[in-house]
Amino acid sequence: MPAYPDISPLYTDLYQLTMGQSYYFNGIHQKPACFDYFFRKNPFRGGFVVFAGIGELARLLTQLRFQPEDLDFLASRGFKADFLHYLAGFRFRGSIVGMREAEVVFPFEPILRVEGELLETQLIETLLLNFLNFQSLVATKACRIRQSAGPHATLTDFGLRRAQAYGGIQASRAAIIGGFDSTSNVYASRMYDLPFAGTMAHSYIEAFEDELMAFRQYAQDFPDECVLLVDTYNTLKSGIPNAITVGAELAAKGHRLAGIRLDSGDLAYLSKQARNLLDKQGQKGVKIVVSNQLNEYVVKSLMEQKAPIDVFGVGTSLVTGHPDGAIDGVYKLAQADGRPRLKISENKLKTTLPGIKKVVRYLNGEGKFYCDCVALTRENFPDHMVHPFEKEKSLKLDGLEARDLFVCHLQQGELTDSPLHPMQLREALHERLQYLPEEHQRFDNPHIYKVGISEGIVQTRNEILDRHQIGSST
Amino acid sequence: MPAYPDISPLYTDLYQLTMGQSYYFNGIHQKPACFDYFFRKNPFRGGFVVFAGIGELARLLTQLRFQPEDLDFLASRGFKADFLHYLAGFRFRGSIVGMREAEVVFPFEPILRVEGELLETQLIETLLLNFLNFQSLVATKACRIRQSAGPHATLTDFGLRRAQAYGGIQASRAAIIGGFDSTSNVYASRMYDLPFAGTMAHSYIEAFEDELMAFRQYAQDFPDECVLLVDTYNTLKSGIPNAITVGAELAAKGHRLAGIRLDSGDLAYLSKQARNLLDKQGQKGVKIVVSNQLNEYVVKSLMEQKAPIDVFGVGTSLVTGHPDGAIDGVYKLAQADGRPRLKISENKLKTTLPGIKKVVRYLNGEGKFYCDCVALTRENFPDHMVHPFEKEKSLKLDGLEARDLFVCHLQQGELTDSPLHPMQLREALHERLQYLPEEHQRFDNPHIYKVGISEGIVQTRNEILDRHQIGSST
Repeated sequence: MPAYPDISPLYTDLYQLTMGQSYYFNGIHQKPACFDYFFRKNPFRGGFVVFAGIGELARLLTQLRFQPEDLDFLASRGFKADFLHYLAGFRFRGSIVGMREAEVVFPFEPILRVEGELLETQLIETLLLNFLNFQSLVATKACRIRQSAGPHATLTDFGLRRAQAYGGIQASRAAIIGGFDSTSNVYASRMYDLPFAGTMAHSYIEAFEDELMAFRQYAQDFPDECVLLVDTYNTLKSGIPNAITVGAELAAKGHRLAGIRLDSGDLAYLSKQARNLLDKQGQKGVKIVVSNQLNEYVVKSLMEQKAPIDVFGVGTSLVTGHPDGAIDGVYKLAQADGRPRLKISENKLKTTLPGIKKVVRYLNGEGKFYCDCVALTRENFPDHMVHPFEKEKSLKLDGLEARDLFVCHLQQGELTDSPLHPMQLREALHERLQYLPEEHQRFDNPHIYKVGISEGIVQTRNEILDRHQIGSST
Repeated sequence: MPAYPDISPLYTDLYQLTMGQSYYFNGIHQKPACFDYFFRKNPFRGGFVVFAGIGELARLLTQLRFQPEDLDFLASRGFKADFLHYLAGFRFRGSIVGMREAEVVFPFEPILRVEGELLETQLIETLLLNFLNFQSLVATKACRIRQSAGPHATLTDFGLRRAQAYGGIQASRAAIIGGFDSTSNVYASRMYDLPFAGTMAHSYIEAFEDELMAFRQYAQDFPDECVLLVDTYNTLKSGIPNAITVGAELAAKGHRLAGIRLDSGDLAYLSKQARNLLDKQGQKGVKIVVSNQLNEYVVKSLMEQKAPIDVFGVGTSLVTGHPDGAIDGVYKLAQADGRPRLKISENKLKTTLPGIKKVVRYLNGEGKFYCDCVALTRENFPDHMVHPFEKEKSLKLDGLEARDLFVCHLQQGELTDSPLHPMQLREALHERLQYLPEEHQRFDNPHIYKVGISEGIVQTRNEILDRHQIGSST
């Protein structure tokens, strides 16, 4: 795997290619089309999602090419020569307009719109969903863990061994965006230029004759970045006393023991005991690192118990977005060949929003996020909006400060800006969260953030529904 | 991304490299070591795990090399020149012995043992866990879905869009091993030579003037493999009647409509309606494909309702192993420098099994799997075993047919056999499941399969625990 792997256009669902072939032979592959990316449900029973992945996706789309071996494979499985010839010259030349990466976003509003030719916009669906759904899931999880831990704790991603195979690569990027400080994943650290971090494993200690010898050896090899794992044999009777011994030896040589790590047992109790023992020996600067099946609820509980923990190493729940495992993001046709399009569903919540759209965010009198209105791009900032599915609910917006949330990520296949570094995205998220009222950030039963639609969308939707009802009754 | 990507040795946790550097400078990096891979808890509240991933992992380990840019990166982050020089010539020359891929395995028994030099066996920990934990998770999930669907239904993996980013690649491989027939993932299909499958999206239909026109066009382009999605506007009033029209037109030209797909609504009700309507029009051969948030429980319910479904397309729950998201597999030092090693824990269940071990499976009088005994390699087939953590529980094994489950996957860094194709592994699993008593295959509250340890392990463990208690009390 190279340092920065390209993505293959075969990284897609088969039907994108069969539909593409059909568009091609029908001569409609170059008709203009617009798809929306959005999701319907916040993960983790939370009140929002941290949108992530677009910076990486946009860059990869500029490089998307069918290689000769890709085309050979498709030929061997029955795709037609004319279509494969077309694919040989394929470039993604579409435009992607939407939310900034690390924006705070909500159900039912478009996060992105993808405009271009029908075939190219169809073809990237799977890749787009695969990248954005997952990175947004993990960034949101990381954000929740950061909220639990508070601004001062250090958060490290320890998840690679339990990550969903190569998914661990993007998980580490998203964890940083959501508020983590570093990762143990060396590959992701190089690929995305992220700070890395690590301690030691039980096996290291067991590989030596005894724990003290192992600690001394590690301290000698890493005198300024030595975090000793203290629970291999007995945390309080052996691990911490031995760490204190080595800490004193390091201090005598002008170094400082960086920390100890607790990886089992009652972390609240043990961290308090450890802090006491260390402080009594004048080792106040030695940090306490904890790990072992942490998630936002365990971290919250530890903080509420005033456990003196400096660093949380979080693995499985972070990198797999447990317990949800996925955001239900979808990619739906909103316009084709100049006409708004709609997916109708008996489940009202699954009827899509037609037309080429943008999202306008309104601020309340205190300058905080108040509501988002989905509008057609040709509309100005609407002065009222209605609930997307319950037309009797409407909200006046006049007099409120309004902002267009959409920016251009890709213009006709070219990056419009150099993507931000994950650490910059982390700062941007931190800034935005200052403006999200606390009731939407609550862990349990958060207040539902208002997302509505403009008059223009209501009209467009009604026109299509009317037309379809006429069409289907004749 | 090339057709068959190599894996970088940087795809690891930082501490493997820092510990490696420390082993190196201590001159113990070449001491013999043995690690065990095992897990502690079955996922999905099930009774077993389908072990998957070793065929791919073993092949990748033969290719594991540090590239010059990897070493430059490590140098830039502070690793020492002598150690990096050593890594430049690094090859994995260890041996991996253990369960066959697609074996039915259980908590607390070693699945694999990895023997070699301390540094090399340490270094591969993260990669090994990352691959085996995830593929075993998905193979187990796929197996449960296959058990629900019965032997005749076709199962297709539709998960890539909701997969955890690149994790979707290995998910498709594991789904086949667990019992699926095909995947929509074109990249995985090429990489692992898997059958692929797909239908069409709502956007295809919306891109045409009306549904019938879209159906006709697709049927013209794919006259022998046309599966029409019937729920874009109205399943019963529009989708199915239009599909029947196109089915008749195809029949008139000597082709046959392959199927229709239902992607929303009550799948039991709609599939029965659809079957009736199709059969009345003489289209008995048209298959019914369903999708939409399926999992083993939904599939089971549909089968119990005798829904006439031929093909299930399963996505999110399959490829993310929802709701668990991870198997808790670990990699623990069992022997170093010729001496058995142990991780002690206040939580008895977390104390590891020392020594170089194998697993022997015993069959009952009917030739079915009865229990597994973990033994030292130097022991013969034990004639009794004890519970790993409750020494008062023991089981006689004399007179039972016994089999050593361990085979050699890698011998001193070389493949001992060419890995089986995922479809062959699927057949092997199918065969093995015939021998697993039904009470262990039950969905809810399965009977716990007995895994015990030999007298040799009990003695080895007691010796180490005694020595450690003496050591820590003096």
